[in-house]
Amino acid sequence: MTEIRARYLVETALNLEACAEAIAGEQSSGTFVAVPGEDAALRARARARVVAIEEIDGTDAPSLPGGRAMGGPVRRGYVEIAWPFANVGASLPNLMSTVAGNLFELREISGLKIMDIALPPPFFETHAGPAFGVAGTRRISGVERRPLIGTIVKPSVGLSIEATADLVSGLAEAGIDFIKDDELQGDSPSSPFADRVRAVMDVLRRHADRTGKRVLYAFNITGEVDEMRWRHDLVEREGGTCVMVSINSVGLAGVISLARHSRLIIHGHRNGWGALSRHPVLGWSYVAWQKFWRLAGVDHLHVNGLQNKFCESDESVLVSARACLTPMSPAKPAVAMPVFSSGQTVRQVADTWSQMGSSDLIFAAGGGVLGHPDGTRAGVEALQQAWDAAIAGVPVARHAAQHPPLARALAAFDGA
Amino acid sequence: MTEIRARYLVETALNLEACAEAIAGEQSSGTFVAVPGEDAALRARARARVVAIEEIDGTDAPSLPGGRAMGGPVRRGYVEIAWPFANVGASLPNLMSTVAGNLFELREISGLKIMDIALPPPFFETHAGPAFGVAGTRRISGVERRPLIGTIVKPSVGLSIEATADLVSGLAEAGIDFIKDDELQGDSPSSPFADRVRAVMDVLRRHADRTGKRVLYAFNITGEVDEMRWRHDLVEREGGTCVMVSINSVGLAGVISLARHSRLIIHGHRNGWGALSRHPVLGWSYVAWQKFWRLAGVDHLHVNGLQNKFCESDESVLVSARACLTPMSPAKPAVAMPVFSSGQTVRQVADTWSQMGSSDLIFAAGGGVLGHPDGTRAGVEALQQAWDAAIAGVPVARHAAQHPPLARALAAFDGA
Repeated sequence: MTEIRARYLVETALNLEACAEAIAGEQSSGTFVAVPGEDAALRARARARVVAIEEIDGTDAPSLPGGRAMGGPVRRGYVEIAWPFANVGASLPNLMSTVAGNLFELREISGLKIMDIALPPPFFETHAGPAFGVAGTRRISGVERRPLIGTIVKPSVGLSIEATADLVSGLAEAGIDFIKDDELQGDSPSSPFADRVRAVMDVLRRHADRTGKRVLYAFNITGEVDEMRWRHDLVEREGGTCVMVSINSVGLAGVISLARHSRLIIHGHRNGWGALSRHPVLGWSYVAWQKFWRLAGVDHLHVNGLQNKFCESDESVLVSARACLTPMSPAKPAVAMPVFSSGQTVRQVADTWSQMGSSDLIFAAGGGVLGHPDGTRAGVEALQQAWDAAIAGVPVARHAAQHPPLARALAAFDGA
Repeated sequence: MTEIRARYLVETALNLEACAEAIAGEQSSGTFVAVPGEDAALRARARARVVAIEEIDGTDAPSLPGGRAMGGPVRRGYVEIAWPFANVGASLPNLMSTVAGNLFELREISGLKIMDIALPPPFFETHAGPAFGVAGTRRISGVERRPLIGTIVKPSVGLSIEATADLVSGLAEAGIDFIKDDELQGDSPSSPFADRVRAVMDVLRRHADRTGKRVLYAFNITGEVDEMRWRHDLVEREGGTCVMVSINSVGLAGVISLARHSRLIIHGHRNGWGALSRHPVLGWSYVAWQKFWRLAGVDHLHVNGLQNKFCESDESVLVSARACLTPMSPAKPAVAMPVFSSGQTVRQVADTWSQMGSSDLIFAAGGGVLGHPDGTRAGVEALQQAWDAAIAGVPVARHAAQHPPLARALAAFDGA
């Protein structure tokens, strides 16, 4: 394949053929009037082409305002568009401008969602993809044949450096695999980044010396490009192994720049994602969107969690998580480790295991660990016990009968 | 003010007070269960507070899926939230994670749009804002007391380097002030960036030597961080004065990084904006969103145009354009020059002038110049004549009687 392809869900008052041609024209050689130079030769080499059209259903009222011929019934369907690689090159930011760009504003549509993209080989040659991914994360953490069990420092913001270090100490002693800063905790007057890294790594280095276990801590380095590099280097010097970035807040060029510099695991937090995805026919599907970040070099990608505290359905979460683990190309699988997080407790463990059929994931519970009625240690143990049960195929209630922390967690997080 | 504030339009099946508290909690010290450490002292220093609530109306059906208690009537209103500055610091990416973050995914809402933000002084001390803005753009272009009249190279992609240079030559001779690459044209096999810059700047340098007029050309440098710096430096070495970035495709950290490096005017293209804004109660208002990019250092910001080819209303376009020209703080106005573009022709000139009441803008017509039936020169002249008429208060039809290019353009773009 020497083309770039994108598949869209569209809603339009036009027929789907006309809508697809409007998309292909706007995003390649066309504009709203004929101009000199857009001759047959130019169109042959540069115009995007409509590959496929599949009408699925219709609806009585347009989903979004601003479309042409509003008020009447509209059609919905999938359209697939192909661009010559020579229009774009292997640049991820320019790819984004080409497959998305102005399309959401077209009057020809009253809904458009990018469902998937397919890329030709130069993208896989130009971009390294995740440097660690699943295999590297397992190697560094020493966790095999089960998910990494993790937590998020809570309260999200406001905790002093000393209280953060104390919390991390208790979590490490309880046997946690992974801890992350909350995405609200960057480098702030209330928790200066360098102080936090030194205090936390002091705890985790001593823990590793004593036990041999290296707890992964994802320090939130979100910031400007040079700040992120500086923070990455500080984490590395202090013996840390993982940095976290709010990828929507930083953006594609900043994340690529960090990844090209990075020697640590990059944990990608997706906050802001809801603006791009919550409407059923506007924005991005996770399947299309995560491909950009994996090629950019992100090792872990948040996918929300089952029965989460937000609005996303379990079905959607599972599609996202499986997408992260699906190879992008034979030459460059670029697999990222999905991170289940948001309102997660012992109650979602069995379903997560049975639905995913893979332990290549991070299961991160913030309140679901730290909110355990018997404290942090019991919170970590309960989660470990829930995963032991799930992987052994033992019903969680039965396992809980022999494991008080799990029993207490099941009671405490009942319907939370 | 030592707080960060954000104002939201929300839609919720809860009462607005409960919804506002959910927002304040999720984006500061709260999570879905109580955790140790979130004591009164921590809440006092770190919890966001609800400043104001204003109920405006209700609706029978929720706008977005996934909210709690779906199916019933919902309320709409504005809520204003304030965060302690110490939670965040003066970082724009972390500000974005704080004021937006996970909010769009809350089950407590069936709609949320960020309407505006207000920032304390450290943001204005940390961020330079536009280095050129309106005054710098006028100084470099030599255009005073009227808008910069501009165009976009069309066809957007597929034009050879030679054809691009020829087009630019004709536009310069016709007296154009400003030319930009299309956002689809980055650095591609079909139009390698360095070749394009050398060919275009060769034309524009000779034009400046001959006439004294420096035509601004916004070269699309969208790409990775180091690529953008390299391309910026090439444009500068070749005597160029302006670079263009697709700011949504590059992201905040990448744009800040470019701006801290840049010695040229930064032209910000907003493609991708529709995904963040087209739904009435999801995503971002332009008023809130443009503040990030102005502080980041973008000099020109696209605002669409009146009677544009896309779906946006004139009222919305005008709010956006006026926002760019509204000072952000007395100490750091950070004013950006609004760029009117998209389906613009001689027909929108009089309204643009009368509605804006300011000539501090760029009026960019691609097809509206290059699609003139008598060619490029007539296209530029027609646009200049339309602006002469508008500023002189002469009806465009009367002016056209004495100016054939304008008359021909009015006929050609009738209802385009």
